[in-house]
Amino acid sequence: MTAVFEMHPDLARDGVEVGRLRLSRLLLMKEVRWPWLVLVPQRPGLRDLHDLKPMDQYRLCDEVTACSNALQQLYKADKINVAALGNMTPQLHVHVIARFINDPAWPKPIWGALPTEPYSEAAQEARLHELRQVLKL
Amino acid sequence: MTAVFEMHPDLARDGVEVGRLRLSRLLLMKEVRWPWLVLVPQRPGLRDLHDLKPMDQYRLCDEVTACSNALQQLYKADKINVAALGNMTPQLHVHVIARFINDPAWPKPIWGALPTEPYSEAAQEARLHELRQVLKL
Repeated sequence: MTAVFEMHPDLARDGVEVGRLRLSRLLLMKEVRWPWLVLVPQRPGLRDLHDLKPMDQYRLCDEVTACSNALQQLYKADKINVAALGNMTPQLHVHVIARFINDPAWPKPIWGALPTEPYSEAAQEARLHELRQVLKL
Repeated sequence: MTAVFEMHPDLARDGVEVGRLRLSRLLLMKEVRWPWLVLVPQRPGLRDLHDLKPMDQYRLCDEVTACSNALQQLYKADKINVAALGNMTPQLHVHVIARFINDPAWPKPIWGALPTEPYSEAAQEARLHELRQVLKL
C-alpha cells in the first residue's frame, strides 16, 4: 500500500480531469458516445468499495449523487449506470454513466461493448466546461 | 409511483431470497458460476441510486459493505464488483458479485457474458445457508 494517492496510469490515459471534489478526483472519459464520468477517491492503496472507511463511503455516495444529478440535468439521460468494477484497473474508481434508450449499446453495459470513439478537442472542451459549471468546479 | 414496495417480477424470477436487511431485500442470483447477490431497497417507485434519500443511500452503503465482506470471507474473491445498472429491470437494485481471476468471464463484466447456469437444489440450499450464517439472517 502506497502512502500517497497517485492516479493509476490507465485512468490518467482514458480520462481527462473535470476537477477535484472533496473526496474524489473527477474524470471525464474520452468517449464521445456517452457522457461518462469516473470518480477516483483520493486515498492511497484502495481497490474495492468496502476498503473505504464508512465516512468516506458516505461522502462518495454524495459525490456520485451530485454527478448523477449533473448528468441528468445536462443530458436528460434515460438511466444512470453506477458501477465499481475495477477488474482491469486495480485502483478503486466508480463509473457514473448517462444512458439513453437509443444509445449504441443499450440496454447492455457499455464496458467493452464497442471500440473507443474519442471527442474532438472542441467537443471535449465544451463538455468539460458545461460539467464544471453545473458541478461548480 | 406505487405506494407500497413490491419486488419486480424479473428479480423475483432470477433470484431467491437470502433474507431481509434493514433497508434491502437480499437475493442470491440463480447462477452457479459466481456468488452473486442483489440488494433491492424496499422503497416503492425507485429506479436510480440518486432517487434514494441520503440516509437510505448511507444505509445501502453499509449493507453493500456487509455483503461484500461476507462474499470475501466465504469465497476468498479476487475482486468484488458492485453495480447499479437497471437498464433492463426498471427497479432500483444493486449487484454485489464475487469475481475470480479464473472465472469464465474474467476480466469482463458478467452481465450477458454467458447463458445462465442454475444451481442444483442442494448447492443452492448450501449457499443460502452459509450466507445466512455469515450475515446473521
